Amino acid sequence: MSLLINMPNRSSTKLVAALSQFISPEEIEVWPDVRSPEKVTMALLWQHQHGSLLAYKNLQAISSFGAGVDFIVSDRQLPHLPIARIVDPMLATQMKQYVFGVIQHHRLRLEEYRIKQSTQLWQPKGPHKGNTIAILGLGQIGTEVGRFLHSAGFNVIGWSHSEKNIKDITSFTGEVGLKKVVSQADYLVCLLPLTPSTQGILNKSLFSLMPSYGVLINVARGAHLNETDLLKALNNDEIKAAYLDVFQQEPLTNDHPFWQHEKITITPHVSAITSLETAVAQIVENYKRCQSGEEILHSINRDKGY
Amino acid sequence: MSLLINMPNRSSTKLVAALSQFISPEEIEVWPDVRSPEKVTMALLWQHQHGSLLAYKNLQAISSFGAGVDFIVSDRQLPHLPIARIVDPMLATQMKQYVFGVIQHHRLRLEEYRIKQSTQLWQPKGPHKGNTIAILGLGQIGTEVGRFLHSAGFNVIGWSHSEKNIKDITSFTGEVGLKKVVSQADYLVCLLPLTPSTQGILNKSLFSLMPSYGVLINVARGAHLNETDLLKALNNDEIKAAYLDVFQQEPLTNDHPFWQHEKITITPHVSAITSLETAVAQIVENYKRCQSGEEILHSINRDKGY
Repeated sequence: MSLLINMPNRSSTKLVAALSQFISPEEIEVWPDVRSPEKVTMALLWQHQHGSLLAYKNLQAISSFGAGVDFIVSDRQLPHLPIARIVDPMLATQMKQYVFGVIQHHRLRLEEYRIKQSTQLWQPKGPHKGNTIAILGLGQIGTEVGRFLHSAGFNVIGWSHSEKNIKDITSFTGEVGLKKVVSQADYLVCLLPLTPSTQGILNKSLFSLMPSYGVLINVARGAHLNETDLLKALNNDEIKAAYLDVFQQEPLTNDHPFWQHEKITITPHVSAITSLETAVAQIVENYKRCQSGEEILHSINRDKGY
Repeated sequence: MSLLINMPNRSSTKLVAALSQFISPEEIEVWPDVRSPEKVTMALLWQHQHGSLLAYKNLQAISSFGAGVDFIVSDRQLPHLPIARIVDPMLATQMKQYVFGVIQHHRLRLEEYRIKQSTQLWQPKGPHKGNTIAILGLGQIGTEVGRFLHSAGFNVIGWSHSEKNIKDITSFTGEVGLKKVVSQADYLVCLLPLTPSTQGILNKSLFSLMPSYGVLINVARGAHLNETDLLKALNNDEIKAAYLDVFQQEPLTNDHPFWQHEKITITPHVSAITSLETAVAQIVENYKRCQSGEEILHSINRDKGY
């Protein structure tokens, strides 16, 4: 039995060291140099090559190395096995801190005051008035972010795939619900899972519904956003500004028009980072469950795609 | 009976209009053109000239036009009368939004990323690690700000003149307590009332106790801060940065060294603004209480000075 680490785009050195405290190094395989493919029982993935799991005949379970599993379920050659994701309670804390931080960066005019400071300009203005925050995606993280923002004094509304009943958040579902939520959004926060139905959901038809002073915050996945539509909406004053932490391609290429756009604030995918300790603990637990034939923790609903 | 408005440095036009909905215009006097000084029963003050209240022989009560009364109690020729302040529940909400906003501006490196964005530099870093926020002043506002920051995931400690027992905030008092609190402060937030004993409390001996990565946030009064000591502490790397919303002299003069200091972020006294509606309601209520001989609301303890 062994655990396969398949993460072509990121270094696994620290991860292997951390896992080795709990799993014998002989039971840890790192793609592409896999010694005994037939012994692999669990695969830990981050943006693996689609089809590459076909090599492991005795695979029993798959785990994402993060909260999202979109890159796994979109693999059409994926064996039909249970899929787990990492559930890190600190992700929600980090996310609420990030989302509130960028909302306040805009509301409090911190960028505006920084520019005025450089020319010794004392010009008090109240915060931007918009008080309604719309959260797309009311999973564990979206719910916690929304309830926190409510406690901070905001009016919070939300939209999700399935109907929800959450204290402090007025929530909607379906196409009509989406329009209702977006048209009231002073701040529109995307915290959706990436699925075929949410891909490109942040597009021109949605921007056209937003108030012209509305601000977009995308902290989910780059593929939720139609980047061309966003540029047009900002250039046509259909919406006011965007704070983006995730992008279609990361790192953002040097010639990407987002870098120099004055209405776009870029942070380099830092809004919430899974702690290595938490991830390792959950991976080890699930690897052991594979060995003993128990059901794995934090498995996703494959039909929903998250 | 009449209400005197004495606010030499600010326009009272809107205030008079709002008060006139509840009090006959004949009962409203505006300094310096007071028609009948002997009829004045209540004085509403904002940075009045010290000694100027001696002219009103039938004065029964005094009210600040804001949350602070420091400029009133420091008037040595003040008649010995009850003093009220405005208590606006929205001030605490605004203050918690402001304080968390500037903490996140620093923690999330938003300024750093803005500079990197201008040169297309993708360089992810986690947030600054400091997780302990020290609140100086645990009155109604300080307590609410502290409890909110605790709910946001921070470790919150506090210091106040009198002993407190507040859920979620480990609090200290006295000289020894002050040293203990300040030496642990990743973020030091001043929300103290201004009194002779707190004037200049943000000084070199306090900065020397702070961690070198500590950040000062002053949202109370400019006179709490020794501005020369702050410049030295920042220039000697004794502390990391300062966010200042209040100053010894406002507006900040053009030649003030704070403007161009790269470690200082200036906002022009905007952290929390009393709403005119709330202030007017409380002023009218107290004016009526004066007429009927009832005790005024929100009166301060003159010995404490707040």
